[in-house]
Amino acid sequence: MLRALCLSLAGVLSGTVAPAQSINDAVTSFTLENGMDVVVIEDHRAPVVQHMVWYRAGSADEPKGSSGVAHFLEHLLFKATDTMKAGELSATVAENGGTDNAFTSYDYTAYFQRVASDRLDLMMKMEADRMRNVRLTERDIVTERRVIIEERNQRVENNPRALFSEQMNATLYLNHRYGVPIIGWMHEMETLDMEDALSFYRTYYAPNNAILVVSGDVTPDAVREMAERHYGVIPANPDLPPRLRTEEPPHRAARRLTFADPRIAQPYVSRSYIAPERDAGDQDKAAALVLLAEVLGGGTTSFLTEKLQFDDQKAVYTGAFYGSVSLDDTSFDLVIVPAPGVSLEEAEASLDAALAEFIETGVDPEQLQRIRTQLKASQIYLRDNVDAVARQYGRALTSGLTIADVQAWPELLQSVTEEDIVEAARAVLRPEHSVTGYLMQAEAISQ
Amino acid sequence: MLRALCLSLAGVLSGTVAPAQSINDAVTSFTLENGMDVVVIEDHRAPVVQHMVWYRAGSADEPKGSSGVAHFLEHLLFKATDTMKAGELSATVAENGGTDNAFTSYDYTAYFQRVASDRLDLMMKMEADRMRNVRLTERDIVTERRVIIEERNQRVENNPRALFSEQMNATLYLNHRYGVPIIGWMHEMETLDMEDALSFYRTYYAPNNAILVVSGDVTPDAVREMAERHYGVIPANPDLPPRLRTEEPPHRAARRLTFADPRIAQPYVSRSYIAPERDAGDQDKAAALVLLAEVLGGGTTSFLTEKLQFDDQKAVYTGAFYGSVSLDDTSFDLVIVPAPGVSLEEAEASLDAALAEFIETGVDPEQLQRIRTQLKASQIYLRDNVDAVARQYGRALTSGLTIADVQAWPELLQSVTEEDIVEAARAVLRPEHSVTGYLMQAEAISQ
Repeated sequence: MLRALCLSLAGVLSGTVAPAQSINDAVTSFTLENGMDVVVIEDHRAPVVQHMVWYRAGSADEPKGSSGVAHFLEHLLFKATDTMKAGELSATVAENGGTDNAFTSYDYTAYFQRVASDRLDLMMKMEADRMRNVRLTERDIVTERRVIIEERNQRVENNPRALFSEQMNATLYLNHRYGVPIIGWMHEMETLDMEDALSFYRTYYAPNNAILVVSGDVTPDAVREMAERHYGVIPANPDLPPRLRTEEPPHRAARRLTFADPRIAQPYVSRSYIAPERDAGDQDKAAALVLLAEVLGGGTTSFLTEKLQFDDQKAVYTGAFYGSVSLDDTSFDLVIVPAPGVSLEEAEASLDAALAEFIETGVDPEQLQRIRTQLKASQIYLRDNVDAVARQYGRALTSGLTIADVQAWPELLQSVTEEDIVEAARAVLRPEHSVTGYLMQAEAISQ
Repeated sequence: MLRALCLSLAGVLSGTVAPAQSINDAVTSFTLENGMDVVVIEDHRAPVVQHMVWYRAGSADEPKGSSGVAHFLEHLLFKATDTMKAGELSATVAENGGTDNAFTSYDYTAYFQRVASDRLDLMMKMEADRMRNVRLTERDIVTERRVIIEERNQRVENNPRALFSEQMNATLYLNHRYGVPIIGWMHEMETLDMEDALSFYRTYYAPNNAILVVSGDVTPDAVREMAERHYGVIPANPDLPPRLRTEEPPHRAARRLTFADPRIAQPYVSRSYIAPERDAGDQDKAAALVLLAEVLGGGTTSFLTEKLQFDDQKAVYTGAFYGSVSLDDTSFDLVIVPAPGVSLEEAEASLDAALAEFIETGVDPEQLQRIRTQLKASQIYLRDNVDAVARQYGRALTSGLTIADVQAWPELLQSVTEEDIVEAARAVLRPEHSVTGYLMQAEAISQ
């Protein structure tokens, strides 16, 4: 079934804001009979393809008590199948001059190879094989569990900023699984076993839960033919469960936390607000929040930088961050690193005063126009990269968005007004929806 | 199968500390062939029995996204069965001069009737009937959902202290279901339907997940004969799942929250620390925490009262609370209500200074001796009440404890030393394991 028409690629960056369709990619999508979605993004400038399989299953889909199993399974998919030895897939990709990897997030797990376009058939053959035919040994489980635990040790346990961020997240989310780290809680990772991995694999690794994204030097017809041959023969999982995510209750109390660690040389204040994400057909609020993050803390001419670093000299760094793509409510984050001699309390008070002033005075139209131009450029540059463009569609489609949403997005960003941004700030930057964290040296905590 | 011997009832309260077995009740326990546990506590002083059925299923056993279903089902168990009309059970109890009710907590749901002892057979007949034969209509679902929502409105939504307490709990627990309120989050309660209720009912309401507790004027032989006839004929649920509870990751960051509500006339500071609970065969730490709560905030001669209310005059009320019985880690809670003119910050600082002083100076031996005597008395008085004694066993057995643990408890409490209490304070009263909450009037929050 053809779900979206092939859209024409047109020249852009020509002075005025381009209409939505003209900056869209040559995107074709269809669904195989077993339910597997396919997205093809043509780009014939170089004889390269990016081949990705995205599963609508990430850490937030894990069973309770098994945090980390989505990422654990990602590691295990590089082990043997019925017909491949452990490591054979990656070795084959490398022999063919390509690169491959995989990644896990809250809402998805994805596998990819970037190779010369005439190797696409081989990539599909191998990727389709490990969708259902991985054969794990107890030794694989023990070895890879050690690897992910070591990964957590290196990335989180030995990194006070990462530990701080975990505690912030766990405190921000009162009821949603986004409060649990993607890599897993250590005490749960240590219990992950063969059955945990296979149960997640059997449940979620099926064509009707997967999205094939191919970008680069390939035609939709060629992708369809290969996809039907390799992926189309895999039966759907009739027992695929719906994605049940628990929603947040009202956030009624401003929360704070203090994380003290002897390894911290530079203390700072971090603030996270619960914030809406892009929803299918309803991306306006998220677009305004993207602009808000840029206006507040997106660079050297942003509001917080001007106010807190240059004018008041309270901070050596300020930032504002908003990740618009996720299946469920996400966060809007601020950070302020105080200048020497400025306490965390003083820095936080300056930040709050600056936010209040911003809401009062509104957006500088000239600054907004600069940001609009930058965003337009970055949306266009993104298309130059077969990797980035494929990731964009994969993330969006595993996060509840459609191709139409992805294609409408650049123009939506352009249409955000000064008033939309202030309204978004008023709606989201509310103390009772937030966690404020102090990261500081351990000595500063008394007891 | 006889699991515990009948223990002799002996006279107590005679000057010195009584040995453990002598203050135990006449408790008999056995298990029916279908796996239903039975506990009989004889007390022939009055011709009354308390009949309770406890299910090892509470709100912390609910499926994700269905918070409140344990309590919802508790309401629905008063509807019709194959042979009883809706409300008939309670009406029959009332006609027979008894009382009945039910309650739901994190770890259990329990149903009980208190009646003349010759009515026990009738109670068992009706209770056994609704263990498997409830017949719900869509109208029952709609009506009772409205009732529980109204219950939440009255008890929580209209009560800022209850809302505050919910946000405190949700912030204290980073990974455990105890962070979700027993009554449920409103947005999830609104979605509870027939299938949610029946799924919970079919899974957990089975003899192999139930404990029958009968206290009062009855013999174990009589209970066994009746229980086999009424409950013994119900088949076990072969698919009863293990009680999977997610455990907390390390608490590394002191958390704080501010809840502001225009309805608050008297602001106060609340502090909760994550704390160990009584584990089977391992109740020493919990016993020390019970004493710690008493020593710190148990009455007019407690440490915090003396220090903060009388000496420093910073507070009009202080309290310390510890609920020792739960399946998983529980909390140790402190509260301080500041005296007029004392800010919440000042009250909190005084509380922290008092705790530090307590850990430094230790426990007053005279005060501890008074508390020991009070505890001994209260443990003995508890036995005078067929309701309280039956609840004690039901709660303990649904929370992972054994009859032996219940019987060892009074003497364990007596054996706690001054050093044990200070050590428990050092281990538990750690900022990074805590949430501190300010409940205040809405005006005080700035934006």
